[in-house]
Formats: sequence, structure tokens, C-alpha cells
Amino acid sequence: MEETICAPATSAGGALSVIRISGPKSYDICERIFSPSDKKLILRDQNGFRIIRGDIHDGEEIIDDILVNVYKSPNSYTGEDSVEISCHGSVYIVTKILELLMRNGAVSALPGEFTQRAFLNGKMDLSQAEAVADLVASGTKASHRIAINQMRGGFSGEIGKLRSELLKFASLIELELDFGEEDVEFADRNELRSIILKVKGLTDKLSDSFRLGNVIKNGIPVAIVGKPNSGKSTLLNALLNEERAIVSEIPGTTRDAIEDTVVINELEYRFIDTAGLRDTSDVIEGLGIMKTNEKILQASVILLVDEISEKSEDINHRADIIRKMIKGLDKRLIIVVNKIDNADQAAQENLKKGISLDSDDSLLFISARNLEGLDELRKNLGKPVEKGSINQEDVIITNIRHFEALRQVSASLARVIAGLEESLPEDLLAIDIRQAIHYLGVITGEITTEEILGNIFRNFCIGK
Amino acid sequence: MEETICAPATSAGGALSVIRISGPKSYDICERIFSPSDKKLILRDQNGFRIIRGDIHDGEEIIDDILVNVYKSPNSYTGEDSVEISCHGSVYIVTKILELLMRNGAVSALPGEFTQRAFLNGKMDLSQAEAVADLVASGTKASHRIAINQMRGGFSGEIGKLRSELLKFASLIELELDFGEEDVEFADRNELRSIILKVKGLTDKLSDSFRLGNVIKNGIPVAIVGKPNSGKSTLLNALLNEERAIVSEIPGTTRDAIEDTVVINELEYRFIDTAGLRDTSDVIEGLGIMKTNEKILQASVILLVDEISEKSEDINHRADIIRKMIKGLDKRLIIVVNKIDNADQAAQENLKKGISLDSDDSLLFISARNLEGLDELRKNLGKPVEKGSINQEDVIITNIRHFEALRQVSASLARVIAGLEESLPEDLLAIDIRQAIHYLGVITGEITTEEILGNIFRNFCIGK
Repeated sequence: MEETICAPATSAGGALSVIRISGPKSYDICERIFSPSDKKLILRDQNGFRIIRGDIHDGEEIIDDILVNVYKSPNSYTGEDSVEISCHGSVYIVTKILELLMRNGAVSALPGEFTQRAFLNGKMDLSQAEAVADLVASGTKASHRIAINQMRGGFSGEIGKLRSELLKFASLIELELDFGEEDVEFADRNELRSIILKVKGLTDKLSDSFRLGNVIKNGIPVAIVGKPNSGKSTLLNALLNEERAIVSEIPGTTRDAIEDTVVINELEYRFIDTAGLRDTSDVIEGLGIMKTNEKILQASVILLVDEISEKSEDINHRADIIRKMIKGLDKRLIIVVNKIDNADQAAQENLKKGISLDSDDSLLFISARNLEGLDELRKNLGKPVEKGSINQEDVIITNIRHFEALRQVSASLARVIAGLEESLPEDLLAIDIRQAIHYLGVITGEITTEEILGNIFRNFCIGK
Repeated sequence: MEETICAPATSAGGALSVIRISGPKSYDICERIFSPSDKKLILRDQNGFRIIRGDIHDGEEIIDDILVNVYKSPNSYTGEDSVEISCHGSVYIVTKILELLMRNGAVSALPGEFTQRAFLNGKMDLSQAEAVADLVASGTKASHRIAINQMRGGFSGEIGKLRSELLKFASLIELELDFGEEDVEFADRNELRSIILKVKGLTDKLSDSFRLGNVIKNGIPVAIVGKPNSGKSTLLNALLNEERAIVSEIPGTTRDAIEDTVVINELEYRFIDTAGLRDTSDVIEGLGIMKTNEKILQASVILLVDEISEKSEDINHRADIIRKMIKGLDKRLIIVVNKIDNADQAAQENLKKGISLDSDDSLLFISARNLEGLDELRKNLGKPVEKGSINQEDVIITNIRHFEALRQVSASLARVIAGLEESLPEDLLAIDIRQAIHYLGVITGEITTEEILGNIFRNFCIGK
């Protein structure tokens, strides 16, 4: 970290732009291109948390009137001497200032490098650093709440608790090891066992929260499948509930839509491959069998759309095909019978009787065109998540790296418990305890590698 | 300006976002949603130009860890008490903070309202305020230099000089008026005349600079016209000099391109309606006669592209049609004979002899495919502007409002000069002098109306 790095921290198109500089030569480099309006002010003599007005110049040429935020090590985001230049929001100006900074000795920051330095300088642990990217990406209240809690150390605190319990345990075990020859038993085996059981319970609770956490962070993928003209696109549009999804006569007009998402009760539902769905030509639908299979494999919820005029045998047949595909996988089938506006209540009752359901399946009758039954469908979509009913105050993990580390912790603890029951010698127990502690350290970054750090920070944006 | 306004000052998608707040209740409103990390710090007790760390909360719920820049009236951009919140670059967070600010008494800022307040509070004059928008929009070195010079008061200084000369003149004239009965003549009429001539000369020089200024600010519109298959799209691509413009087999692939611009010698050339150009189907070209006429009327430079294999009579015929269209207008014709790789030097010489040119026309032989003759063409494109040869240190006006006001100043001064020659009485001269001073005041905003301000600031971006 001898290099001084710089990067734009805001994107193009706003009224102002911010450029970040961090590293030992931040002041040196800035002083070469910055003249304070008050000539008496010298950057390096400032206390941190000061703003200085002045201009950026390239020799004689004035580039912009700017404000400079000055931070002094260790009281900055990165922990290093650091400067933020706030200039007019012009791409020309930002490019020019970055060019000047680099010409004077700064280097272009890698994605996430500011946050990586914050981690390496002990300003935050690794799980907190990871939460910064989650926070920037969070688009719903629930995902935001988890990210900010994690960034502010909520999750680190939980890990710290587990760690200190395990260290207590380890120290007892190792004390025995030291006196091994004398066959002393300092720790009551029952007490040891209850500590480990407690820690394992907490660990498992955390890793169990990943299912919900993942859903909150990444949304729930939903596939809408069914015969042509069963009303799939009308249903999609009704759920999206706005003009975004235009069922247009002109091909390609909605194919550009990258994502179709809807937020219901703080959870985001992502409809998969809706471009194909919107193609109302039967030829394409006919070609789409492979695509349908792919969609079902990607989805957590499958909406099988059929018309009220269909025979129950046919619906059962299609539902069975899907059930076979999703058997043993964490996926749900919702059979949606559409166009109930075309039939009376008796027809609906009749069809209902004929449709067979598995325990996790749902059956709903709707009219997508008349927006009937959609509230019921929306409620049904979120049911399995709400079933999880994890408390809002609980720490929820959203990161697969954390999930995997926690599973390693849990596996190590299971071996300790088994070892205690088999009265294994202390040195063998100590190995597994150490392993559990090791994996907790992987989460917070006490134990880490260049490769892990690279993987984490390369997904950050530039300037963060 | 009793309202406290707020707006995002950065666009979505960066590592951080900035929200601006300005007005008498800036501190009050922020204090309700902001808790400093150092509980002892109180926003309103801070000197300006301070940064405070803390968090934004909605009741118990933490929204984000942020930094706050505090500015105290009158030492802020707007001249008012003012706060800038720097938060994580998440649309969710920015929306939430704006919502909180508004719930606590701030109102959403109109486009340009921060700069408008800066003007109304005397932090800058109107021409400086206008330059802020130009600065944000500037994309070339030349347009940037003009905008920053104007923002820093270069143009206002020139106007100030003219104004003080005219005020000197007016005071002499009016002294005579006071002693009118006594028929005293304080001012030497010759001296008066030479002052006015000098001021008029400076005024005209400024308004003359508008032609160049406009070109620097808005670029030079260029039309490429000619028969199908004469190589227009190959020429365009060669000039754009990169992959941006793909001459694709698939229709519509390049139609999406909004603008095709190229910067040559600090000047931007905008090629008009290139989507049509790229449609190589003759049917569309055939339909495009109206379009071609439109393009010619929009352009300052018309490139008529023909092949070396054409007869000179035909080329002359087409050139004549264009000459008739542009007669008396400030437009130039460049005849570009393409595909010289298909012919020998003799054919080229022969064709050259047969083509007749008007004095402002140019004739160039190129091979767009082989990139031959393109440097010559690039040089030729910028020729009329370079002919203007205005000094780089000169103040250049780019704003049509300023241009029109200066023309009014000039017209008033012409009347004064005529009046002096006809020995008109002082009171009549004074009217025209006052009018000239009035129009100078319109430029700097000493004289202004709600309507003028509305027109100027509504073109600003939000948050500026």
C-alpha cells in the first residue's frame, strides 16, 4: 500500500462529481495541481475533516473550481491520508483531473481497492467490507437492512461471540493437554459438551438463515410456463402491474427488457426469460421446449398457467411433467387456472375436483385480464419464505462464502461433540476446535488469502 | 427563498452519492435525521467547511453511515446555510434520505435552483451562472476553456469595462443636461465620439465571437449526401475512425446511434442523420430526398460524395442543386470524389478539370476504403473556423442571449454615434446611452425578469 490510488467515486451525468485519492502521497500529489483560494492554507497542515476551496490547474490552465475534503490517517475511510475532490459534473473535467493526478504520481484504483485498504488497515473486518458492496446494491428495504446491519458489525459481533465461547473451550482443553501426563481433567466433560452444543446451535441458526438471506438479497426466481395463449404474458403484465411490459404488436420492442422484477412484501420476485414469454407467435413457443426446461431449472417458483376451458387430465399431465423435473429440488409448483371470466363457478368447482395436488403445490383460479385472484397469487408467492418466520432482529447471512464457512464450523463442532461422547483424547478434540475457530476467522478475515481478497473485491465498483 | 431545498447532486450508479440541502432550515432539518458519531458535535455550532461523520436514521432504523459537509451562510455555493450529505451510492438509500429530508420540511429543488440562489444571493452574476451549465456540458478542451473562463468572471469583466466606459460617458452628458439652460458643453464632442467608437468596437468584437463560440459550444453540423453506393457510409466510418459505426448486414443495428461526432483540432463535428445514411437499401435512399433536403438545411458543411467513375457534368449538376439550396446561407459545400483507388491519376486530373467550383467550395479526391485523402478532408472541414483566427486569450461568447443583448448594445451605440454627428441634444443621446447600459445589465443579470431566470435555469440539471 505504498501506492497512492485515485478513482472517480460518482458516475457521469450528475451536477457534481467526486474523485477519491488515498495513500501516503495524497497531499503531495494534490498540492501540485491544487491552489487553495486562501493562499495561506496548506493541505498537509490541515486537521482532518476539513473542506478547502480552490482550483485545479494544469500549469497555467485552470481546469475547475473545486472543493477538497481532507482526511488525515488514521481517521479516513481507508485509514490512510486521503482527499476527495468535488468538481463540476463534467466527464471532460473528471477525466482531466484523473489524468493530472496520475501524471503526478497517483495510480488508478482497482475495483474495491479503497474498501480493501480499509480492511487491510483494520478499519473494518472482511464481512463488514463485503457488506459495503451489498449496501450499494441493495434495492429493497429488507436487503438494505441486512446489509447495513452487517456493515455496522452486527454479524461480526455474532461471530465474535461464537469465537470467544470456542476460545474459552479451547483454553480449557489445552490446559488439560499441558498437564496431560498427570491425567488431570480440568474441564467437566458435561460442561464442555453443553458449551459446544450451544455454539453449534447458534452456528446452525446462522447458516439456516442463509436460505432466507439469499432470497432477500437475490430475489426469488419465478418461471411462468404453459401452453401458448393460456395468458402467460397477460399474467406477467398484471403482476408487473404497469406499462413497463407492453404486449406489443411489434416484435422486439419488449425483448430489450433485461429484468422483470416486482417487489411484494419487501421481497423481490424475478421473472425468468420474459422476452420469450412475450413472443406470442406459436412457432417460437413451439421451439421453446428446451427453453421451458431451462426456466424451470432456474426458478424457485414455477407458475403453470392453464385455461379454465382445459380438461383436468391435461392439466394434471403437465403438472406431473414439472413435478418430475423438480422432484427433490427446493422448488414449488403453483398451478394457475386463468380466464375464469370465461366460465361460471360450477365449471371452476368441477375443474378443481379433477386436479390433483402434491402437498407443496398450490392451485389458484384467476382472471389475469380482469385482475381477479392476483392478490391471492401474490400472497401465495411469498408463502414459503414467510413460513421460515425468522425474526426481524435476527442476524441473517446473505453471503455464500459465510454460509460455507459456517458449515465448516458446524461440521468441526459435530466432530467435537462425537469426540466428547467417545471420550477422545484432548489433543484430537483440540484439532477440531481449532478448525472451527479457523473458519470463523475466515469469515471476518483474520485468516485470508490474496485469492479470497481478489474474489471479494473484484466485484466492487470502481471508487468504492 | 424561505424554503429549504434538497436534491441529489450525483447520478445513480457510482460508489457514493451526494445530496445537497440549502436554505435557512438546512441544519434544523438535518439534525432531525442525523446523529453524529461524536455525540458532542452539534451541526449548527460548527464553523463552515467542516465534515462530520455520523448516521442517518429514520426513527430507530439506521439508513446509512454518512459524511456531512457543513457550509455556513454566506460562505457556501448558494450563499445560504447549506449541507451536503455524502452517502453510499445506492438508489434505495438516496431515495430514502430525500424522503426523510422532505418529511422534515425540505422541498425538492427545481433544476438549477442552487445556482439560481447563488445568483440571487450575489455569489455570481447571471453570465457566470449560465457558464456553470456550459461547464458541466463541455466536452472538448475549447468549450471547457470558454465555460470556465466565463464562470470565473472573464466575460463579466469585459462587460464591466464596457459598462464603466459608458457610465463615464453618461455622467458627462448628464452633467450638461443639468446645466442645459446655461448652454455649457462640458464634454468635448470629439472625445465623446471616440469613447463611443471604442466601446462599440469592443461590443462588436464580442458579438462577432459568437459565430466561433457557437461552433465551439455546439459543434459543427455536417451532412453527407450523394447517390446510393457512392461510399457515404464508408466515408462516415472512416472519419469516425473506429468500430462504433458498424456497416452491418443487419438493419437497425446502427440505427440506435444517437449521435456521431468526431473531434478534430478541438472542434466537434456532428454528422446529421447518420441512421438513414447507413441504410444501404436503395429503396430507402430513394425515399430519402426530403430527408436529404432537411439534412442540407440543418448542416453548416455539406459533403457531396461522388465516385471517380461519374461524369463531371453529373457531379456539377448535383453540386448546383445544393448551391441553389444554400445560397445566401452560412453553409459550405465540399465535393468529395471517392474511390480514387479505382482510377489512375489521369482520370482524376481529367475529372478535376470538368468540375466547376464556386469561390467557397472545395474539391477533394479520396479513397474512403483506403483512408486516402482523409487528413486533407479533416483539415478542410475546420478551415472557415480557423479563418476567423480569433486569439485564444480573447473572450468568446457562446450564448445566444448574450449575443442578442450585445447586438442591442451595438444598435444603441450606433444611434449615439449618429446623434453626435447630427449634434442631437444631450437628453436624446442620454436615452440611447441608458439603453446600451440596460442591455449590458441584462447580460450580467442586474436587470432581469422571472421569465428570463426561468428560461435560463430550467435547462440546468437537478442538484446544480
